[in-house]
Amino acid sequence: MAKKSVDVKRFSAGAILDFIQRVLVAAEMPSEDAHIVAKLMTEADVNGSDGHGIFRLPGYIQRIKEGGLNLRPNIKIEKEKSGMALVNGDNAQGHLVMKYCAELAINKAKNSGVAWVGAYASNHAGPAALYAKMPLAENMIGLYVAIGNANHLPPWGGIEMLLSTNPIAIAVPGMTEPPIVLDMATTVAAYGKVKTAAQRGEEMPEGWMIDKHGQPLTDPNKSDDGFLMPIGGPKGYGLALMFGLLAGTLNGAAFGKDVVDFNSDFKTSTNTGQFIVAIDIASFSDVKTFKQNVDAVYRTMKASPTLPGYDEVLLPGEQSHKKRQDREQNGVPIHSSLLNALNQTANKLGVAFLE
Amino acid sequence: MAKKSVDVKRFSAGAILDFIQRVLVAAEMPSEDAHIVAKLMTEADVNGSDGHGIFRLPGYIQRIKEGGLNLRPNIKIEKEKSGMALVNGDNAQGHLVMKYCAELAINKAKNSGVAWVGAYASNHAGPAALYAKMPLAENMIGLYVAIGNANHLPPWGGIEMLLSTNPIAIAVPGMTEPPIVLDMATTVAAYGKVKTAAQRGEEMPEGWMIDKHGQPLTDPNKSDDGFLMPIGGPKGYGLALMFGLLAGTLNGAAFGKDVVDFNSDFKTSTNTGQFIVAIDIASFSDVKTFKQNVDAVYRTMKASPTLPGYDEVLLPGEQSHKKRQDREQNGVPIHSSLLNALNQTANKLGVAFLE
Repeated sequence: MAKKSVDVKRFSAGAILDFIQRVLVAAEMPSEDAHIVAKLMTEADVNGSDGHGIFRLPGYIQRIKEGGLNLRPNIKIEKEKSGMALVNGDNAQGHLVMKYCAELAINKAKNSGVAWVGAYASNHAGPAALYAKMPLAENMIGLYVAIGNANHLPPWGGIEMLLSTNPIAIAVPGMTEPPIVLDMATTVAAYGKVKTAAQRGEEMPEGWMIDKHGQPLTDPNKSDDGFLMPIGGPKGYGLALMFGLLAGTLNGAAFGKDVVDFNSDFKTSTNTGQFIVAIDIASFSDVKTFKQNVDAVYRTMKASPTLPGYDEVLLPGEQSHKKRQDREQNGVPIHSSLLNALNQTANKLGVAFLE
Repeated sequence: MAKKSVDVKRFSAGAILDFIQRVLVAAEMPSEDAHIVAKLMTEADVNGSDGHGIFRLPGYIQRIKEGGLNLRPNIKIEKEKSGMALVNGDNAQGHLVMKYCAELAINKAKNSGVAWVGAYASNHAGPAALYAKMPLAENMIGLYVAIGNANHLPPWGGIEMLLSTNPIAIAVPGMTEPPIVLDMATTVAAYGKVKTAAQRGEEMPEGWMIDKHGQPLTDPNKSDDGFLMPIGGPKGYGLALMFGLLAGTLNGAAFGKDVVDFNSDFKTSTNTGQFIVAIDIASFSDVKTFKQNVDAVYRTMKASPTLPGYDEVLLPGEQSHKKRQDREQNGVPIHSSLLNALNQTANKLGVAFLE
């Protein structure tokens, strides 16, 4: 509501939350669940995760309409020990499953010091940082890994698309400095960046993708003919594979050739796997001392002289933190193409537009 | 002993173990500890980690001689809950500290399902995979992260050397296929590769290092003027930083500007930080089913058709596994330059040569 330009309009977090909630409720998600999901999706947008917030709403609604999501789930602990749990997501919206898992990990870590909670039968849950950051409020460190919901890369040296970008997020709290929050895919570029380049009619830089002959692929409209490149070549492939074994195979969730492409199949249960680890700082050291030491690391990195072409050193999560400050003040920018898609969805469901 | 060439001689694992042990004992390490360290160092060589086994012996001995290592340590649990422990390594040889931590994590995970054990006041412990693989024998998954003992990279965009290559290793057992074992630095090339290139008089490929002006550095003899490149640019920097916070800051170990360069300072305690996580498979699922599923992932990756220029897809740890089979049969190859250095060390200590 704040600013206006030809292609972008800004909306307050409140307006976005209300819109998502009424759309989900109209699609018959129970209102309490719809509120939780809407809040987390809005949080993603406020944090600057443009590809993982309200952007996903039309896809989520299509999945609900085609019967691929369970709107009356019984999310429950399947197995449990003091330092871990395995959660059956019962094919619920991923946000509900992972909020449940994060809270469970936090509660367990209060007693056990560290707790690892894995999930199967989950679904896409938005940006990884959302969950890694949940333990921060309890003076805990969060670590989250997810299986991506579409395969975009082959094993290193191969051409069969068997791996997703399987992201990792780690969040560590500081005292007066912002928390340090890494949220990264194991590929040079996330697939969302390819989509954005296509939408904008831009070439991709070399290094993002290769084609089936191993040649650089720079036309984002031909992305179906190529693969994302893992970071560090075989190393990124190795990370994507190990994260897949930990978040997928260990939990009994889909991994490798069993991953359901949620962009083209809206009916089949995705059996998405994720895990979160909560690490209670007080179990290791004095919390204040730890946070001050994190601040010291933060400032030491910031204080490094820079390479030619770089104005400053950034900490992981710093850009998101700045976006958050801007968006809380000025609203979340939404491109007209996305706004159209959102209001088409609203129109079909007979609810008030986002405007 | 098996093969011979101009520059390389092969020695049996037993001969290497005996040599390391007598050198350490002559340097006044208690014989029981010397045996443990020698066994793990030999294991590193048999697994193909040439830069992390017997290669390190002269440096370890120099540290002992200059008083930088505690030969009569009291390694002990400092803090403990069911899912974690913090271990004070008392400035012992890192192998002793991390074997202690791995066994502790395994024992704890038998009850808690998952256990995270961090260490401070530790030292260089050899290759990361050594410890990540320890839980395998107990039907557990291992995850290990260490702070490297010398800083070789700045934060992304900076020029101050504040970060090490902080490696991660993850080991997952299969049923009939070999375990899948990732062991990687967060940089494109480990620093050992730069040293090897220098030793062999070879140029480095672009992408391994840059100089202080941001230009590619390809002369390994000028490596002191440049930095290692993190994998995926800011992503590898982010991983090195977060792993540093988890393995260093959380444990009260050195990180960032406090890291002691163990290649140039043999007196100051390094206060090395590491952590290991043991994940009990049976707490999550039927062990046999899990291992069969890991085998299925292994075979699916191997079966992928390949890109031009690639003969086959490799799994993480596969090359090491093949080296191990060769070396168990034919002995560990040791270059003449290393052999000279080792026997100089033996000579100073008055013990029998490796020959």
